[in-house]
Amino acid sequence: MKAHINAITLGVSDLERSLRFYHAALGLSSPGIIGTEYVADDENPGGSAAMFTLDNGLILSLYSRADLAKDAGLPVGQVAGSPMSLGIFVDTREDVDRLLDQAEQAGGVIVRPPLERPWGIYSGYFADPDGHLWELVYFLNAQPPD
Amino acid sequence: MKAHINAITLGVSDLERSLRFYHAALGLSSPGIIGTEYVADDENPGGSAAMFTLDNGLILSLYSRADLAKDAGLPVGQVAGSPMSLGIFVDTREDVDRLLDQAEQAGGVIVRPPLERPWGIYSGYFADPDGHLWELVYFLNAQPPD
Repeated sequence: MKAHINAITLGVSDLERSLRFYHAALGLSSPGIIGTEYVADDENPGGSAAMFTLDNGLILSLYSRADLAKDAGLPVGQVAGSPMSLGIFVDTREDVDRLLDQAEQAGGVIVRPPLERPWGIYSGYFADPDGHLWELVYFLNAQPPD
Repeated sequence: MKAHINAITLGVSDLERSLRFYHAALGLSSPGIIGTEYVADDENPGGSAAMFTLDNGLILSLYSRADLAKDAGLPVGQVAGSPMSLGIFVDTREDVDRLLDQAEQAGGVIVRPPLERPWGIYSGYFADPDGHLWELVYFLNAQPPD
């Protein structure tokens, strides 16, 4: 198998709110909420979702936490928390600051103001309205790992 | 800003175990654990991590939950759960079954055996040793969204 990830699905509590947030915070655009014709039943979760296709073909999908839990066969309480972060590499130090401010203005929370790390990055974290973590990263001395 | 995600960092409780799991479950290879020279101090988390560079350039990184929480300025209890899933699109229905079996043999848990969904996919979920959700997806009638 080729080593690839095609989609990242974030479980959210309010699809419309998250759609607005990602548009305002990261400038992401999408055709809006799709799949509303698939209503949850005994066996299936609902199909409503919003999808952003990113520049490298990766799909970032927003999906209700309840539907994600039902789709995965887990209690909804288990589809919570934030065991991961999504990283965006930017070209300048100022981009880190600017994007964190933009995320805050869009309704996110700056959970860690930017600072330099010993391994040569300047980075900060914001959380989206559901607590999903995003890290903005600027490499101080070199290119990102490849 | 270009719409991109460069890295997905999964918080894990045992780096070595997770490295073995992803090698066995998905065939991912990496140079092993790096950054061990960066030991946690008052201000900084530890730097030990394992990174897989996937075919599309996306970096999948394994990082201790405690370090991720410290890096993000959050209590470690908040860096838990599974509010998202990572999706892999495969070419055949059999690939879904085979990869789920492989993940189970590697120490994962099949949380939802594969089935067909009304929106035209055949898919199943496994959880890695920390509960991170992965969905294997085969499109029954069409190509994936692009």
